[in-house]
Amino acid sequence: MNDLPLQPLRWMGDAATGRLLLVDQTRLPHELVELSCADAATLHEAIRALRVRGAPSIGMAAAHGLVLALQSARQLDLAAFRTELAACAAALVGTRPTAVNLHWAVRTVAEAAQGSSAATCHEAMHAAACKIETDQQARSAAMAAAGTALLAHGERILTICNAGPLAAGGLGSALGVVLLAAQRGLAPTVWACETRPLLQGARLTAFEMSRAGIPVTVLADSAAAQLMARGLVSRVLVGADRIARNGDTANKIGTYALALAAAAHGLPFHVVAPLSTCDPDIPDRRGIPVEERAAEEVLHFQGLPVAASGAAAINPAFDITPAHLITSFITERGVVAPAGLAALLATR
Amino acid sequence: MNDLPLQPLRWMGDAATGRLLLVDQTRLPHELVELSCADAATLHEAIRALRVRGAPSIGMAAAHGLVLALQSARQLDLAAFRTELAACAAALVGTRPTAVNLHWAVRTVAEAAQGSSAATCHEAMHAAACKIETDQQARSAAMAAAGTALLAHGERILTICNAGPLAAGGLGSALGVVLLAAQRGLAPTVWACETRPLLQGARLTAFEMSRAGIPVTVLADSAAAQLMARGLVSRVLVGADRIARNGDTANKIGTYALALAAAAHGLPFHVVAPLSTCDPDIPDRRGIPVEERAAEEVLHFQGLPVAASGAAAINPAFDITPAHLITSFITERGVVAPAGLAALLATR
Repeated sequence: MNDLPLQPLRWMGDAATGRLLLVDQTRLPHELVELSCADAATLHEAIRALRVRGAPSIGMAAAHGLVLALQSARQLDLAAFRTELAACAAALVGTRPTAVNLHWAVRTVAEAAQGSSAATCHEAMHAAACKIETDQQARSAAMAAAGTALLAHGERILTICNAGPLAAGGLGSALGVVLLAAQRGLAPTVWACETRPLLQGARLTAFEMSRAGIPVTVLADSAAAQLMARGLVSRVLVGADRIARNGDTANKIGTYALALAAAAHGLPFHVVAPLSTCDPDIPDRRGIPVEERAAEEVLHFQGLPVAASGAAAINPAFDITPAHLITSFITERGVVAPAGLAALLATR
Repeated sequence: MNDLPLQPLRWMGDAATGRLLLVDQTRLPHELVELSCADAATLHEAIRALRVRGAPSIGMAAAHGLVLALQSARQLDLAAFRTELAACAAALVGTRPTAVNLHWAVRTVAEAAQGSSAATCHEAMHAAACKIETDQQARSAAMAAAGTALLAHGERILTICNAGPLAAGGLGSALGVVLLAAQRGLAPTVWACETRPLLQGARLTAFEMSRAGIPVTVLADSAAAQLMARGLVSRVLVGADRIARNGDTANKIGTYALALAAAAHGLPFHVVAPLSTCDPDIPDRRGIPVEERAAEEVLHFQGLPVAASGAAAINPAFDITPAHLITSFITERGVVAPAGLAALLATR
């Protein structure tokens, strides 16, 4: 795992006194700065404000965050430690409703809290959080390998939001496929939907691809269908925030429109995500909660008002792409059609 | 034609010495100011920079603009006047490539240049330009009446860009239907796609609807399909910049994606446009030129850079919606399905 691209976070120090350092993604591409989280409140704010974002990265941050939140509980007796653990886990899970990796990571770290004292439980949680991070890098590498095998030379890949190293760790999810394809000489190019309202595509995907020397062209989200009609797109690759058992997929708002357009033009549409993004408890789209974010994100831009005063706005952060529009899922366990997803999950 | 909403332009004075006053639409909604055009160069810049925009409004501006450009030619002999007229007409037509009303209006005013002297020709041109403006107001009223007849009570109408009074004069095109429906007590509400990159929806549609007391909610363009999936949209109404003989329609980038989404959800999709927006010389979409605008419009926002440095951008100003996705055209001559458009044009 040497020479990884810029990673979204790192833990500095030991379990008892360490800190979580996050790349503040809201300040990219203009500034590359790390935010030091020394307490749970700082991390909660960072997740809510999208300083760390991308479903797998939120999971990794929450895993370390739970360790951070329990540092002051190492002196408690075991029962009191577990009470505190439950409260801290619930607070973390409440920061964002859609990304299921957050739930999964918090549950995984909480279940690792085994030992004869609070301190030994806490050490075990720290080990589990570090393992989630290194495992995620390996998962990203496996997804990239599986996805790259699908690509021809010179593919023109359209994506939305940011599903790169910053979003998922390691090589990233959708952009991990592109990064590995470039390393293998397949010369992919990227169409980056700017991704209103918060422009993760223009800010983060363009940043990551430019750093890697991969040609990237930004477009207004609404221009994607026209590029497809002009024959300029060979394939769509996107990440995911939560995948229901039948393959219905929540991802950044705008993904559904891309899937409709890809289907209309006969283009392959792939969701690249680790199995930790799948929620086997939810049969289909009707069970996926969709986060509604503040109207201000649409009505203002970098602090400046853009809309007529008095106008309201609606700002769903995600939409849901029905499984029938998805060609395949690219996971760390290989490529699977929507119809095969439930079976793959059953063997997880 | 009393009590018209804010109009995009007005001619002040006589043919020989008058001026064209334009509402500077780039400064809305923050400032309502008029730009005084006393020469052709000022008007050319205003059209290119979208200070006046909307296909019918560009046509009206160009009609008056040709009169403006010929004011200094009134003393010439007839032959010299006609040479100058041809040059000024060509310069105006070159300002924007897609909106066909521009060509139509310039040709109409040029053909009106009949008389025994340059001055009398010029007076006739001025009369023709004024007639284009008043005729357009009547066309907008007729489109609104035809469209309103299609609406039920409480429709939730989704639109993109701005197809209101500022874009088309009078009541406007797509928003003229909404304005008249509101006057008739049908209580329509509007979903306004913000319309990246230049936000005509957030800036102008929200402004016009708010002024008229019609509830309007702004959304990121990419959220439209999800609103349809949630059952929040009853109908899509859009304007047009050029319509081919078979009904293929160029309109603001993003329109095609809306049409695909409307078809996927079984929602009616209407193009509201005067017949001057139709180009009977072009059989289908392949003949429609699509303006490519500066990458800066995507890479910057209100003067601030948004994308990673080094990123390129593609910025097609329009896309083309194929006729088979269009339920009907709402024109000043009534409502017609795409298959009936050619026959209607033949009787124009």
